[in-house]
Amino acid sequence: MNFEQVTIVGPGLLGASLAMALRDRNACGKIVVWARSPERVKDCSGQDWCDQADQNLEAAVSGSDIVVLCTSVESIPAFIPEVAALLSERMLLTDVGSVKKEICHAGAIHEGRGMGTFIGSHPMAGSEKSGMKYARADLFEGKPCIVTPSKNTQEPVIRSLHEFWEKVGMKVHQMDPEEHDRCVAHVSHLPHFLSSSLAHCLEGMGENWQSLCGQGLRDTTRIAEGNPNLWEQILMSNKSNVLAALEELERSISLAKNYLAKEQGAELREFLEAGVHYRKSLNTSNE
Amino acid sequence: MNFEQVTIVGPGLLGASLAMALRDRNACGKIVVWARSPERVKDCSGQDWCDQADQNLEAAVSGSDIVVLCTSVESIPAFIPEVAALLSERMLLTDVGSVKKEICHAGAIHEGRGMGTFIGSHPMAGSEKSGMKYARADLFEGKPCIVTPSKNTQEPVIRSLHEFWEKVGMKVHQMDPEEHDRCVAHVSHLPHFLSSSLAHCLEGMGENWQSLCGQGLRDTTRIAEGNPNLWEQILMSNKSNVLAALEELERSISLAKNYLAKEQGAELREFLEAGVHYRKSLNTSNE
Repeated sequence: MNFEQVTIVGPGLLGASLAMALRDRNACGKIVVWARSPERVKDCSGQDWCDQADQNLEAAVSGSDIVVLCTSVESIPAFIPEVAALLSERMLLTDVGSVKKEICHAGAIHEGRGMGTFIGSHPMAGSEKSGMKYARADLFEGKPCIVTPSKNTQEPVIRSLHEFWEKVGMKVHQMDPEEHDRCVAHVSHLPHFLSSSLAHCLEGMGENWQSLCGQGLRDTTRIAEGNPNLWEQILMSNKSNVLAALEELERSISLAKNYLAKEQGAELREFLEAGVHYRKSLNTSNE
Repeated sequence: MNFEQVTIVGPGLLGASLAMALRDRNACGKIVVWARSPERVKDCSGQDWCDQADQNLEAAVSGSDIVVLCTSVESIPAFIPEVAALLSERMLLTDVGSVKKEICHAGAIHEGRGMGTFIGSHPMAGSEKSGMKYARADLFEGKPCIVTPSKNTQEPVIRSLHEFWEKVGMKVHQMDPEEHDRCVAHVSHLPHFLSSSLAHCLEGMGENWQSLCGQGLRDTTRIAEGNPNLWEQILMSNKSNVLAALEELERSISLAKNYLAKEQGAELREFLEAGVHYRKSLNTSNE
């Protein structure tokens, strides 16, 4: 599929980076950006990655081959019917939300009504920074993107969406929305929860140890700097999966705690070795 | 104080890096390295950072102004009396162990017997890599080093040790051994424990999610790749402080877990904000 015109709804870190990447790689013709506020419309107008900036959703969507919802994860389900009503049959609607079940449920309602096709996407390219000012053309390069079609989605349309993300350099994977949410609960939301808990714990101690902190603490707490509004939404949207993952983690923690308390050195070493093995398996994937 | 001759006992990551740093910065005259095995003595001989490599401890220590024990944290307490017996009064003995109470207790026994002075050191420059092959001359540069003198240690001797670590580029702090151990339990051992627990938990799931792991998971689990033998020793040597720190962390985790389970969004956001605040305080120190 050729993407003649792309509409990006919400020019935040992901939305603006997507526009930059599309322009940089000459991956589409016209790029239209919808923004809620007149100030933001002004910010986008005249950027080389934005051919038209609009506050009017109908005008922004009209004539596009693909519309990408890049607003906050919380706001996406409500956006879907609003945008879907404006689509023609051949148009593709997707999003960048990091939790998919609720979003894909909202998308499925509109399926088969001749209003285009919704397929969820999760480009895993976030950062602890958020907002347009941190946007970069290479944000997506080499990163994974999970697309989450429903059972009824037609194969050629799924293919088009794969191609779309591949055009900005992503490695595309496919899962159903439930599997996606369970996966990211473990590999993304749990690490964030943990990193924030460690930072919260140390903040609460009120000790003046900052200058004694090494790279290990800096690395383990880096993502704790992420936007609290965004992460509150993400954790809440994926509540049951995050709580289940957390329970699994708590089992690991108490295992190691017992080995330490009872001075079971060999068992503790074996525990640490399992962690080494896991970490090494990440190195051989796509670091 | 001028360090005419320095003896390094154990040329691992820290020992060999120290020798390289001293040579690179022309911070001392002769560098003597003691190693346990003939193979390792051979590895060191002929390196430009090693003027004499010896398997004989007495020969290695003789004539040095300062002797630095760089063997494993577990082995240091037993080394101290052995080396102390070989020291003359003006000689300074220190170590690089990351837990200090037991080591400094072993050092204190020899204090005032005219066998030189022991002061504990903890150069916080470790890495998830260990061994001589990862040694680098700039390992210590800009990193913190905590020295842990006893109440009886004389001020000029403490000064000398500060100067020694400053010569290889470190920022020197001073604490008593107990305070040191409580501090590192929080800022170093707890993050390691947590990082390993997360990696252990994910390893146990047996899912094939490696290619979907983003930078957040890579960062939070990086230190889990650390040497299990080394970390088993460190955690065991600092058991009571690590267990206490872990309990504090578990309080933070259950707090956030409750906010999530009860969908208390405002409280969860506030929790995450405390983490952001802590993480930002690290940025303004010495990253």
